[in-house]
Amino acid sequence: MRFLAIPTLIAALATTAAGVTPAGADDLLRDQAKKSFEPIPKTAPAIPGDPATEDKLALGRMLFFEPRLSDNHDISCASCHNLSLGGVDSGALSGGHNAQLAGREVQTVLNAIFNKSQYWDGRTSDLKDQVVNSVMANPKAMLKTRGGPMAINPVELSATKQRAIEELKSMPAYVEAFHKAFPEDANPLNYENVGRAIALFEATLITPDAPFDRWLTGDANALSDDQRDGLKLFIDKGCASCHNGVNVGGASYAKFGVVASPPPEYLPADDLGRFAVTRNVSDKYAFKVPSLRNVELTAPYFHSGATLELSKAVSVMAETQLGVKLGEDETRKLVAFLKSLTGRQPEVTLPILPPRSH
Amino acid sequence: MRFLAIPTLIAALATTAAGVTPAGADDLLRDQAKKSFEPIPKTAPAIPGDPATEDKLALGRMLFFEPRLSDNHDISCASCHNLSLGGVDSGALSGGHNAQLAGREVQTVLNAIFNKSQYWDGRTSDLKDQVVNSVMANPKAMLKTRGGPMAINPVELSATKQRAIEELKSMPAYVEAFHKAFPEDANPLNYENVGRAIALFEATLITPDAPFDRWLTGDANALSDDQRDGLKLFIDKGCASCHNGVNVGGASYAKFGVVASPPPEYLPADDLGRFAVTRNVSDKYAFKVPSLRNVELTAPYFHSGATLELSKAVSVMAETQLGVKLGEDETRKLVAFLKSLTGRQPEVTLPILPPRSH
Repeated sequence: MRFLAIPTLIAALATTAAGVTPAGADDLLRDQAKKSFEPIPKTAPAIPGDPATEDKLALGRMLFFEPRLSDNHDISCASCHNLSLGGVDSGALSGGHNAQLAGREVQTVLNAIFNKSQYWDGRTSDLKDQVVNSVMANPKAMLKTRGGPMAINPVELSATKQRAIEELKSMPAYVEAFHKAFPEDANPLNYENVGRAIALFEATLITPDAPFDRWLTGDANALSDDQRDGLKLFIDKGCASCHNGVNVGGASYAKFGVVASPPPEYLPADDLGRFAVTRNVSDKYAFKVPSLRNVELTAPYFHSGATLELSKAVSVMAETQLGVKLGEDETRKLVAFLKSLTGRQPEVTLPILPPRSH
Repeated sequence: MRFLAIPTLIAALATTAAGVTPAGADDLLRDQAKKSFEPIPKTAPAIPGDPATEDKLALGRMLFFEPRLSDNHDISCASCHNLSLGGVDSGALSGGHNAQLAGREVQTVLNAIFNKSQYWDGRTSDLKDQVVNSVMANPKAMLKTRGGPMAINPVELSATKQRAIEELKSMPAYVEAFHKAFPEDANPLNYENVGRAIALFEATLITPDAPFDRWLTGDANALSDDQRDGLKLFIDKGCASCHNGVNVGGASYAKFGVVASPPPEYLPADDLGRFAVTRNVSDKYAFKVPSLRNVELTAPYFHSGATLELSKAVSVMAETQLGVKLGEDETRKLVAFLKSLTGRQPEVTLPILPPRSH
């Protein structure tokens, strides 16, 4: 045991008296947390084999906001991945609110680069393939088909790809932008490069400096008492056994309903989840464990978008996945912890898109 | 007559030989143009009685991008007034492309502050009223009703207003932002102030430094020969008798079909235009003369969105309004001139919107 100087000791006692976790307990919890979690890095990660350049990122930003990639020229990546709203829509297009439009609930594009796979069923592993899959599918058709673009007729998909590329080729500013971004390609304007450019832009959409990350890297004051208690519950109750890593999720799959079956509005019977990708019976109703980064901003929750309330989502998860009935106070503290996962949102300036040439 | 030093004389002759308009003719055309047109100012104009502050502009920008002002939380001002695309949609929601959704074609929000009235029928005179009228109406209902929100049931309109305000009040960050923006109001979160904040933000969306403006203020090289010829045609043929002022339009009304009746797809019989506002028989099929600023970016054209081609729009206008059949070369030069009206687009950083509190 170390001896503390008197003023330090008084300060430590005063802190304890005020209800703040003593420094020793804080360090212990941090050591424990570091085994499960990593902070979001401060700078955008590289995509292996595809170094980011200013020209690629500028093009990627244009394409991310480009509605003329869609069949009706009315939907861009940014329509569903609204960067003013945590990288999701406001619940309007997806399952929970307007079931008639339902695909699955939009997953955020923020920190998506840190997920091990993309989509609720993990059907693409990297961002570029996700982009090619989503951009090139007809998002309207996608919205009508539970499960998304996989269900789309490949002939239609191919025709859509071709139209999107023709549309871009008709605008000289895009032809120039693709040549600048991919100087090594003789014919750079193709949908592989659309995917590369958008994926590189998306890899910049990260949210460092969340209170939890500041605490994890040593700032003892970054979390409130409730948030610290919530983190402890999050680890002790078992949430962290799936929701872990840099994205507090996004790294594995789990059946929705490990212990108890969720109500049908939470788990609609016709969406078989990862089974549609693997055809393994054990993957029926399994979904990617979603990242909980910025979860405060990404309501409604679950692949079904069945609830707008984070506290409800927490208690449903505890019951169905862990067989735990949470007390009101426990739920409140877990929600407080989850709100400490909201990071600094990326600052994005709208691109100016070229006019169509007529 | 002034004497020119030999080198100057040679330079002048060389310029003439190369086909560039001699300086004297350029000055003459500029003097003539200055009688009809004014450049877009370099800085945002003030709204009388409502000085812009940083807090008001920050709030206005948030509200401009806020989909939760709409009934289904899926449409914001920015959805139709896309600031990446000249302040309009890409033609997708409006008349020309998808007639089943038709209201009237979206008019750009860029430089709207310089218009004498707002909407194709001029039913509001200032931006604030336009905002209150549009934001608070249900944009989806508006799209289904030719002529826009005026046709909406006032009971529904009022209910929508109330819902939007309640939605904002549920988010503490908005309550704080309204108090900061309107410190003189005890209850600042009301739809009048929604309109004021958005209008002040919109007044910053101006596009100075178009080639035409640079030429008008003395830069002889800012216009190409074709553009200069096009300007001369624009004045000589009579286009400038309606399309004039700082916005090259936006200051008066004119019947669509002064000399000859436009085809029905250009002038659908069921949209009576300004008549719906004034009930004056002489206003039947009269519309606001639209601004031609950034017209290159704002296809499709006409209130009906009937064509994507600027050259087609020019020839239809010449025939129906002026009784002039343009030669191919004349049309080409007029289009070249119109493209000189594309100014520096505003640089807008996406706001980060607060989460809903659940």
